[in-house]
Amino acid sequence: MTPREPLRPVGYDDAADRVRLLDQRKLPAVETWLELETAEQVADAIRTLAVRGAPAIGVAAAYGVAVEARRGASPERLREASRLIASARPTAVNLAWAVARMSRRLEAGPAALLAEAHAIRDEDEASCRRMGALGAPLLPRGARVLTHCNAGALATAGYGTALGLVRAAVEAGNPVTVFADETRPFFQGARLTAWELQRDGIPVTVLTDGMAGWLMQRGEISCVVVGSDRIAANGDVCNKIGTYALAVLARHHGLPFYVAAPWSTVDLATARGADIPIEERGADEVVRINGALIAPEGVPARYPAFDVTPAALVTAIVTERGVADGDLAAALRRLAGA
Amino acid sequence: MTPREPLRPVGYDDAADRVRLLDQRKLPAVETWLELETAEQVADAIRTLAVRGAPAIGVAAAYGVAVEARRGASPERLREASRLIASARPTAVNLAWAVARMSRRLEAGPAALLAEAHAIRDEDEASCRRMGALGAPLLPRGARVLTHCNAGALATAGYGTALGLVRAAVEAGNPVTVFADETRPFFQGARLTAWELQRDGIPVTVLTDGMAGWLMQRGEISCVVVGSDRIAANGDVCNKIGTYALAVLARHHGLPFYVAAPWSTVDLATARGADIPIEERGADEVVRINGALIAPEGVPARYPAFDVTPAALVTAIVTERGVADGDLAAALRRLAGA
Repeated sequence: MTPREPLRPVGYDDAADRVRLLDQRKLPAVETWLELETAEQVADAIRTLAVRGAPAIGVAAAYGVAVEARRGASPERLREASRLIASARPTAVNLAWAVARMSRRLEAGPAALLAEAHAIRDEDEASCRRMGALGAPLLPRGARVLTHCNAGALATAGYGTALGLVRAAVEAGNPVTVFADETRPFFQGARLTAWELQRDGIPVTVLTDGMAGWLMQRGEISCVVVGSDRIAANGDVCNKIGTYALAVLARHHGLPFYVAAPWSTVDLATARGADIPIEERGADEVVRINGALIAPEGVPARYPAFDVTPAALVTAIVTERGVADGDLAAALRRLAGA
Repeated sequence: MTPREPLRPVGYDDAADRVRLLDQRKLPAVETWLELETAEQVADAIRTLAVRGAPAIGVAAAYGVAVEARRGASPERLREASRLIASARPTAVNLAWAVARMSRRLEAGPAALLAEAHAIRDEDEASCRRMGALGAPLLPRGARVLTHCNAGALATAGYGTALGLVRAAVEAGNPVTVFADETRPFFQGARLTAWELQRDGIPVTVLTDGMAGWLMQRGEISCVVVGSDRIAANGDVCNKIGTYALAVLARHHGLPFYVAAPWSTVDLATARGADIPIEERGADEVVRINGALIAPEGVPARYPAFDVTPAALVTAIVTERGVADGDLAAALRRLAGA
């Protein structure tokens, strides 16, 4: 591996009081950073996918509250800014979780709020490294890991959830290779997962979303590892659209299906996956690529941004508190008390 | 339904002696026809996907041999032209089948060869209409049909295989709706299936390839209907990459998985799907869209153009000779004798 500065897509400029976001809509072609000064700007960056990935949008949300406080927002404005950010996207529970954590400190003042946001970021990266340590042993030597979307450094404060397991395995000397679903319609796999793994010198091959079954049938995949946007109390896993199909294929081929997510993604207040609100985005994001229509004018398209994989298809959930397997509902309850 | 001129993507200009192909690389944005005068041009059109779909490339291949004969090719040149066309793409057996059928008439002269090519075209469209009549009753009233790639008029001489069933059902008064996988990387679903169904006034919704599982899980799909590029003697079905995943998902959800293909797609000389040569195309066709890279420079990508669905996952195969179901190997043997 080439030693590289760790990739941290969400930051804060303490001197200028600005939220700094690596603009993920522009990768891999261009590496540009957004500098944001208001809650509206942060909510917009979340809504338009400049920052995406459940843990990363949680960190961005925390900084969005902090930047308002640091720029002198009144308590009332701070509460309004928090609501605005929390409602930017509905599915990833980390967003609501981070804003709720910030809200408990609203009276503590700007310095304390910024410190809290920094803590959320630092804890998220530490959680990813801990998940890596706990989860890497799940990957057999020379594992050929199939992943979907981007659950990497770019989706977190740094290091990654699913890709954190891969990084930890590689750092431990396991020559893992990755197969990245391109992940339509936003191409997070082809654009982001491929980019950050190439940057770290980890072998990665891009696939279209329809190729996973073929590779599994030929024995070319060892296991599936994905992240999550919300995990229900019963162990149902909500993640990027297309994940559920991989879980069904993995089961059909007898392959393990692993989920890696920080504890902030576990939503014990939501009983089952069916209760998770699934964001439906605009059809235009499906049928237009770089502005050009790929379908006839006027043909409708669907864009559920996420799907739910039932707990029964999940081999194990790796969190920084431990690995949940077997009866996932019971295992999550145990980890909740840990 | 709006009454429209039937769509016939492969034709022959008898007066000018030119093969006419609707350029499917340009649809849906532009409707342009290629006018071809040599076997090389026809082989190139097949290789570069100006014409695609197993039955359609069979018809184009026949005309490619005929145009050479009509333009005065020597018997030796005709044999060379036939070989060239037959080797343009490896997977669809209809290509080799059509060239072999033309080859048996090579000595009969230009007029007979052109008549043979016309017969191949006419029989293909008639087969599609017969498949429609046989297969439409498989679709329940108001069926929500999921299809992959384009197995429509554009993939045949006209009317379509999978979409032929849909058209026949609609003509019989069954208000069927279609869900079309966009079908990466060439977007045959978003571009071609959506275009020809919209043209005929049949409701169609475009999906990315990763959404099928989610729709099935929610009970929004009645059945899957696809075409095929080659069917082995044991009933294994080779079709566009991504088809196998749909078959596994259909089985998981207890949904029927139907294949519609003319008898020219059935290759009794190939025992099992594993014996079918799977074309691997260039990675560039995956990672470039309209010339723009969607992945970092230098990241490898896979592009198997087809996959194989085991007979065990196929509910029935609709051919113009009859519907094969149950023990598909035995059913195909029976139809072969019919």
